[in-house]
Amino acid sequence: MALYSSKLIEEAVREISSLPGIGKKTALRLALFLLKAPKEHTERLTSALCKLRAATQYCRHCHNVSDEAVCSICTNSNRDGSVICVVESVQDVLAIENTGQYKGLYHVLGGVIAPVEGIGPDQLQINSLIQRVQEVQPQEVIFALSATIEGDTTVFYITKKLKGCAVKASTIARGVAVGGELEYTDELTLGRSIVSRVAYP
Amino acid sequence: MALYSSKLIEEAVREISSLPGIGKKTALRLALFLLKAPKEHTERLTSALCKLRAATQYCRHCHNVSDEAVCSICTNSNRDGSVICVVESVQDVLAIENTGQYKGLYHVLGGVIAPVEGIGPDQLQINSLIQRVQEVQPQEVIFALSATIEGDTTVFYITKKLKGCAVKASTIARGVAVGGELEYTDELTLGRSIVSRVAYP
Repeated sequence: MALYSSKLIEEAVREISSLPGIGKKTALRLALFLLKAPKEHTERLTSALCKLRAATQYCRHCHNVSDEAVCSICTNSNRDGSVICVVESVQDVLAIENTGQYKGLYHVLGGVIAPVEGIGPDQLQINSLIQRVQEVQPQEVIFALSATIEGDTTVFYITKKLKGCAVKASTIARGVAVGGELEYTDELTLGRSIVSRVAYP
Repeated sequence: MALYSSKLIEEAVREISSLPGIGKKTALRLALFLLKAPKEHTERLTSALCKLRAATQYCRHCHNVSDEAVCSICTNSNRDGSVICVVESVQDVLAIENTGQYKGLYHVLGGVIAPVEGIGPDQLQINSLIQRVQEVQPQEVIFALSATIEGDTTVFYITKKLKGCAVKASTIARGVAVGGELEYTDELTLGRSIVSRVAYP
């Protein structure tokens, strides 16, 4: 166990290293950086974190993080309300937004069904999705979940629940990455790309 | 540029990613982790950082970080006051403390002389070291600086200044790491380890 000459440093290192992916050494480096930097630096950082935790909400409709009760994507009248893209996490919303290729709405599940980890449908925003589809009646629901057994199970579960609704369900394409070489693509992906081949128009 | 659906997230990500070695993606992951974790987690983290920045001082004698005006190493009567180990940074003090092999005092320079980066002797705690040696009159000063041109220059500069004092100067041994294989040791280190060979007693 490291012996810190200062209790304050010890406490700061303990708290910083409780963040995911940050060890004791990195935590110490960050603590010493803040000590050397102007006081305002620490003040800006801590106030941003406090405000983040105190004021951020989850959007009532899509469960994305938001400053208001309804997020800026759901309230944006320029977005196509007839399509809902189902994703696992807030990061996935950002990733899709950054492609600039999607103008519809989102629904953040908060994960996928994983019985091994004790995550069932009730821990996720699945019921609120079904309810939302029934109320809003979109034309299409696009699933953009992980291509894993858990992801596929979740899609299967939700599509079964959506049977009664007149909504088209689709999933994002799986295949060889753009610019990717066949030689280095894993067998599962390459196999899937052959099965899901696209005909030239 | 990433489009965050929340201004608060955007601000938090900007502040977190201003820390060294943390990019936008890691910052977002940390921000979302804090959002999901209990509120107390963020409170403990921010209060530790605020206290760290507000209450930490630099020891009047050795310039190590400290909770008081004089650090716990300098006030510890069990430590050997006749030896002073000169190091570059607070991290180096921790590294040497963790070996459990040193029971003397320290002196943190805050860097090494590096004219290229504009760091001269006056930006470092060199004058206070000379003064301390003259006042306290230790038996030995051990230099534990980087084995670089800058480190060697700093040792040369300080030993020249210490000429008048009746104090032994030494430097930590450079050589092949314990458990290290000769084959993978760089030539400079291996060369130095032959020149500084130790006779069997």
